[in-house]
Amino acid sequence: MKLLLIGFGVVGQGLAEILQNKSAQLEQEQGFAATIVGVVTGSKGSLFHADGLDIADLLAAAQSGSLAEYPEVSGLRRGWSASEMIAAGGADVLVEVSPTNLETAQPALSICHQALEAGLHLVLANKGPVALDYANLRAKAQAKGLRLRYEATVMAGTPTMQLAEEALAGCEIRSARGILNGTTNYMLTQMEDGMSYAEALAQAQALGYAETDPSGDVEGWDAAGKVLILANALFGSSLTMADLDVSGITRISAADMAAARSAGERYKLLAQATPTGGSVKALRLPLIDPLASVAGAANAITLETDLLGDVTLIGAGAGQLETGSAILSDLLAIQRMACPM
Amino acid sequence: MKLLLIGFGVVGQGLAEILQNKSAQLEQEQGFAATIVGVVTGSKGSLFHADGLDIADLLAAAQSGSLAEYPEVSGLRRGWSASEMIAAGGADVLVEVSPTNLETAQPALSICHQALEAGLHLVLANKGPVALDYANLRAKAQAKGLRLRYEATVMAGTPTMQLAEEALAGCEIRSARGILNGTTNYMLTQMEDGMSYAEALAQAQALGYAETDPSGDVEGWDAAGKVLILANALFGSSLTMADLDVSGITRISAADMAAARSAGERYKLLAQATPTGGSVKALRLPLIDPLASVAGAANAITLETDLLGDVTLIGAGAGQLETGSAILSDLLAIQRMACPM
Repeated sequence: MKLLLIGFGVVGQGLAEILQNKSAQLEQEQGFAATIVGVVTGSKGSLFHADGLDIADLLAAAQSGSLAEYPEVSGLRRGWSASEMIAAGGADVLVEVSPTNLETAQPALSICHQALEAGLHLVLANKGPVALDYANLRAKAQAKGLRLRYEATVMAGTPTMQLAEEALAGCEIRSARGILNGTTNYMLTQMEDGMSYAEALAQAQALGYAETDPSGDVEGWDAAGKVLILANALFGSSLTMADLDVSGITRISAADMAAARSAGERYKLLAQATPTGGSVKALRLPLIDPLASVAGAANAITLETDLLGDVTLIGAGAGQLETGSAILSDLLAIQRMACPM
Repeated sequence: MKLLLIGFGVVGQGLAEILQNKSAQLEQEQGFAATIVGVVTGSKGSLFHADGLDIADLLAAAQSGSLAEYPEVSGLRRGWSASEMIAAGGADVLVEVSPTNLETAQPALSICHQALEAGLHLVLANKGPVALDYANLRAKAQAKGLRLRYEATVMAGTPTMQLAEEALAGCEIRSARGILNGTTNYMLTQMEDGMSYAEALAQAQALGYAETDPSGDVEGWDAAGKVLILANALFGSSLTMADLDVSGITRISAADMAAARSAGERYKLLAQATPTGGSVKALRLPLIDPLASVAGAANAITLETDLLGDVTLIGAGAGQLETGSAILSDLLAIQRMACPM
């Protein structure tokens, strides 16, 4: 399986490391072998080789700060754009792991459409295209018999989408509600232990969970992007951000936390999607709700189904290997679904 | 997809009901259509029709107590054995939903081997063959390019096996530990609220969770069968019941429950499987463990992985539609993995 990687930051490098460390095991146990033929980055240059790039050299170059450090070999192309790599042919899957843009989904979205038109399967960790243009991407993929997969966009490698779309394929999913932002869940857990909002935010920033500008997390927008993805994928909705009721955790005080505790409840930033809408809101949950017990930076989702009642999945929501493993999981699924020659 | 059902009790009838109620939706949304061509029961007779049995008539006959009540139609065969139906040809999948026998796995095991030899995929809710002869069944299925699936054997339709074997295919699973018997979890939840063991057992029996002879549940054997299945499927073990350390909940007193509660812990009957062994034991878990919050008859499992850390799945562990939906899920997976003609 030949891969084109658009983006080579934390997630792309996580995938490359996993492919490097697990290649023998993956080949032996799953008959799976993947080669990275192209890498395009925003600021570190780009590399293409039809026969595949050396992963150790690629990781070393990226870690040095520029793909220009990759050693010269015959057949290597430097500086190609994603379009040039797609046009060159030979790749099987476009892996979109560049930074998420929830306003326009660009430049990733155009590249995704080009890739599908050229006959490449599509695997994304980038939430933008799935949140904002799912229906068009899905229709284009189906028309060409290609796979569109995006496990990494919700709960990192914790297999939310595979659970909802494959493992529960025989059930009707009536709603999804979850803790889909680890930064805010970490902060709420710290606030339960007595920290103020400001202290919890400072600690989340010190640990690298929250950005210098934390608004995407604490105001609920990151979780809202995931609500759009769930609404699109599970319910065929065509919601936009403007259709969602979104708030965050910025107004929760120590007094609110204390009141919840004395009522036997916990605040959680709940992301919810139903066939008719979606929201992101801090709500008080009773302790018997499985979501109430999800502590720290973990994520969780409860899918309400017709045949099975509630099914809850709890796991990591971020991290280099955790997200890289979601891409690998999607690549393995593409292979499982392909026919033998 | 043409199905032979061995067994037509709660689970088989649950599957038939789901196929009846969802046939239009399954055909439209998943391109899936299944026909029941044969049903073999232990005490209600058997029916076979190469063109398929009418599901409404089949359910009515079963509910009347005898398949002899099924209306006469041209081409219908009555009283055939499973072997005769397999030999007749035409079926694609053998669905084994007869009662579990954890001592010899018979008579189901012989029928499963015959079915694989005749080229049928195999889907089981019956735990016996998977717990006691997994390696042979797996080898035979692989040699013939057939699917061996058994989602219903652990946590009913809550998709434990799909999570472990497909969604987490890129991860190494290091251990599995779970609450895999709903009856005992229900009893422990009642005992936390102050009931004695005897009262909790009587209530579980009144609700139909526990059998008149409750030893399979309360002494841990039902959960132990699931440990063998997990050990076989996840770790390629060849453990037998004699290799497991099995105890139940029969010795937990009100004083034990109180001691756990005052330490901020809860008793759970934990089923554990690792690459080197397995056990079923009542253990005290801290409340921050996601398994500690699983109340009532629900089941749950935590899979410890290399790339993702702990992944926990919580859901139903029994029930007619819940278990029937596991069979449907396996049938859909067989279809997904098959190649188009």
